[in-house]
Amino acid sequence: MNAYEELLGRLKDIDIIGQIGSLLSWDQEVLMPPSGAPIRAEQLAWVSKTAHERITDSRIGSLLEELECSEDLDDIQLANLRLTRQSHDRATKLPVDFVEEMAKHRSESLVSWTEARANDDFSIFRDDLAKSIEHARMKAEFYGYEDQRYDALLDLYESGLSVKRLDPLFSGLRDNVAPLIKAVVEEGDDPDLSWLTQNSWDIGAQEQLSQNISEAIGFDFDSGRRDKSTHPFCGGPNPDDVRWTTRYNLKDPFGSLFGSMHETGHGTYEQGRPRSLDFQPAGKANGLGIHESQSRLWENQVGRSLEFCQWSLPLWKKFFPENMEGVDAENLWQAVNLVRPGLIRVDADEATYNLHIMIRYEIEKEMISGNLEVDELPDAWDDMYDQFLGIKPSNRSLGVLQDIHWSMGAIGYFPTYTLGNLYAAQLLEAAKKDLPDYDGDVQRGDFSELLTWMRENIHARGSILEPAELIEEATGSSPSPKAFVEYLSSKVEKLYGVVA
Amino acid sequence: MNAYEELLGRLKDIDIIGQIGSLLSWDQEVLMPPSGAPIRAEQLAWVSKTAHERITDSRIGSLLEELECSEDLDDIQLANLRLTRQSHDRATKLPVDFVEEMAKHRSESLVSWTEARANDDFSIFRDDLAKSIEHARMKAEFYGYEDQRYDALLDLYESGLSVKRLDPLFSGLRDNVAPLIKAVVEEGDDPDLSWLTQNSWDIGAQEQLSQNISEAIGFDFDSGRRDKSTHPFCGGPNPDDVRWTTRYNLKDPFGSLFGSMHETGHGTYEQGRPRSLDFQPAGKANGLGIHESQSRLWENQVGRSLEFCQWSLPLWKKFFPENMEGVDAENLWQAVNLVRPGLIRVDADEATYNLHIMIRYEIEKEMISGNLEVDELPDAWDDMYDQFLGIKPSNRSLGVLQDIHWSMGAIGYFPTYTLGNLYAAQLLEAAKKDLPDYDGDVQRGDFSELLTWMRENIHARGSILEPAELIEEATGSSPSPKAFVEYLSSKVEKLYGVVA
Repeated sequence: MNAYEELLGRLKDIDIIGQIGSLLSWDQEVLMPPSGAPIRAEQLAWVSKTAHERITDSRIGSLLEELECSEDLDDIQLANLRLTRQSHDRATKLPVDFVEEMAKHRSESLVSWTEARANDDFSIFRDDLAKSIEHARMKAEFYGYEDQRYDALLDLYESGLSVKRLDPLFSGLRDNVAPLIKAVVEEGDDPDLSWLTQNSWDIGAQEQLSQNISEAIGFDFDSGRRDKSTHPFCGGPNPDDVRWTTRYNLKDPFGSLFGSMHETGHGTYEQGRPRSLDFQPAGKANGLGIHESQSRLWENQVGRSLEFCQWSLPLWKKFFPENMEGVDAENLWQAVNLVRPGLIRVDADEATYNLHIMIRYEIEKEMISGNLEVDELPDAWDDMYDQFLGIKPSNRSLGVLQDIHWSMGAIGYFPTYTLGNLYAAQLLEAAKKDLPDYDGDVQRGDFSELLTWMRENIHARGSILEPAELIEEATGSSPSPKAFVEYLSSKVEKLYGVVA
Repeated sequence: MNAYEELLGRLKDIDIIGQIGSLLSWDQEVLMPPSGAPIRAEQLAWVSKTAHERITDSRIGSLLEELECSEDLDDIQLANLRLTRQSHDRATKLPVDFVEEMAKHRSESLVSWTEARANDDFSIFRDDLAKSIEHARMKAEFYGYEDQRYDALLDLYESGLSVKRLDPLFSGLRDNVAPLIKAVVEEGDDPDLSWLTQNSWDIGAQEQLSQNISEAIGFDFDSGRRDKSTHPFCGGPNPDDVRWTTRYNLKDPFGSLFGSMHETGHGTYEQGRPRSLDFQPAGKANGLGIHESQSRLWENQVGRSLEFCQWSLPLWKKFFPENMEGVDAENLWQAVNLVRPGLIRVDADEATYNLHIMIRYEIEKEMISGNLEVDELPDAWDDMYDQFLGIKPSNRSLGVLQDIHWSMGAIGYFPTYTLGNLYAAQLLEAAKKDLPDYDGDVQRGDFSELLTWMRENIHARGSILEPAELIEEATGSSPSPKAFVEYLSSKVEKLYGVVA
């Protein structure tokens, strides 16, 4: 057996362990009985420890050294080496006691954050947050970086991501989207939503709508499942077994539907991975930004279009005949596109969402560099909301305490949400050039050509390229806010008759 | 760390791997999407291989050698050593290529058996069965035995089980139960079952009945689940997460109810394991015979009693108000205790069931010893059905091809079904001596004292003793058919007014 084959054998082992862990996690979120939690944590810890032992094995290091000197490697082999090198280095660069300390701190921190948020008392979380920031800075130092310390953290969630790449994207958004929102708030008229808010929306009917639309998009239910969970997500072990969840609310049918379309987008990406690269890093989905582009594409670019509302209206009327009486596609379209600045990121509309992310990005950047310390965070947060969204949180729970991410040490994660939105707009713009009757397709509920385009240009490409390279290959342009800004401006103009 | 602690650490690792495997298997049976099967097989193979590597580790061998010389070991430590020695030896005694050959053959054999049964053509399965028998004989030789070759296989499913122990049990059954059945067939009158067979039984109502009765018995749904699957079973990773399944049939409400009570019995056993022995072999359930005693206790001894029918009748009437109109507890009791010799083991009633097992036991004994060869099996089977049940299969699918067990290499497994029935009768007889108003408890649906008795005398004892020792400790007598024969004779006399 040559070195490359030996490496693939070891990577397959590691991948199988990861698949098993992902099934255990799915089960934990979706249907494990409550008492099962403590021993499940031990099972998951065993899986992590075993995967860590395998990826840090010194034999992987020596195989990599040997192979990195070879010539005549093809793109896939090069990608496998690059990605294995990345995982091996990441796993070996952090001292074991530091990893344990972080894990222990994460559990404690999650508890204090939950309590702080429930009691609207930042001081309960303050010391743990300070330590999380310190850990994040140390982690960045262990990993190393070229330019800014924050870059080492960004790179964890999208390979190659940096402040240098993100700054122009966020400034492009800020300069264009903030004025647009201001115009809507000052000049736009909200549509009549009484048909939506005054009705109760049957859960069984929401499930059927959700299922029908996911099937229409092309999610393969022979290779996946739809379930219910408190926090919607897409998981499952491999492309033959992709599992997404949603949640249902009697007062709001949009949460489950757009949640379903979002997770369906993630799910189709997983199902479309290149099967000849099963168990190889090059065959995996390409980082969080690209993943989010697939969810946002279906949820927003497709799902909140007028054409989609025209196609889906009969389904709405079939499943909710009474509630939908007298509602036309235009009404539905207006309702799913309400622009209204708010304090809570997860409730934000398409227009304001990225400003929520921009605020977090600016804060994280400063807090990792050392320009912003923990006690300054709550006010910095509130001031930025005031400045960019024109509203100020009335308490800390609606402000700096709202997101779980920092309590889990996930600093550097937020920007991938916005990357997803920008990539989705860029990808759809590019796809439309290849799809002669895209709007008509959506009006007819025929999503096969769009899905095929994504299959070929994104899904099948796995992680062979770096994320930014993949966007450039698929769209002809490097990542940019331009397509998104144009898409949003045009939509807001049609909806509210305003221009920025 | 001393040797015993090191051994416990290694055993915990092996147990966690087993727990993970059990969750993967549960998921595979209950909700995995169809395309997930091939990679799930790879995940399960990885789990088996990893567990095998750990239990065969030579360090386990040297720790055992060291500890087996120690003095001052307590019962639990001795049990852990005995059980670890057993697993280590079993895993090391079979040559790796033999294990692989058997695994490969099992897959092929399952296919040919399925085809043979569907086509009622023994010749399709004949060669694979011949090889399975040959493998079983070889396996027994690798494991070793004192008296009969078949003993080595029996011991796999209940430690210490042998022909010497089983022969008197089965002859006791044969001599007493066969005449009883003959008397029922010749002299007994079947009850009127039109209320049962002429109605359709709503699946949702069956689910509720099933759930209510499982809760009443004392299954803890905070530490377990009920689901649906094609083949009912009880699984799940550990006592905090015990998962049983059942199946529903619109034409027959008894299948799901008694199936649920059966699996609930297995489930309460798992939930009652001694928690101070988590992750230790001594804390595990004690072999298949004892496990089956717990399922049969609730399914038959409790569930098919007149008192249970008296208590559950109002539930039946609540969930099936129309179907149950005019049906009284006595009607229900007669219906769930119909004695009628049939050809199919899984459809057999309480009286005839053990004769189905006895026939399989006698055949296995002769086929492993070499007295009966593969081509003689089909007729031997039919002749024994004629002799002991008075009916002869009209084709091979209803005869020798009916069970999956031999196609999976599970030879030596069948007798544990009958052991479960005998142990259940012995245990209830013993428990009743300690429960002042057992019949009244059942009539009131108060199962807590019986469950507590099983918790203390069976569940909490884990695998500290050998199965036969545990029965003797709990009941004061060694395993015997006496209690079962008395129970059955008395019941049949009340139901049919006949005596053997």
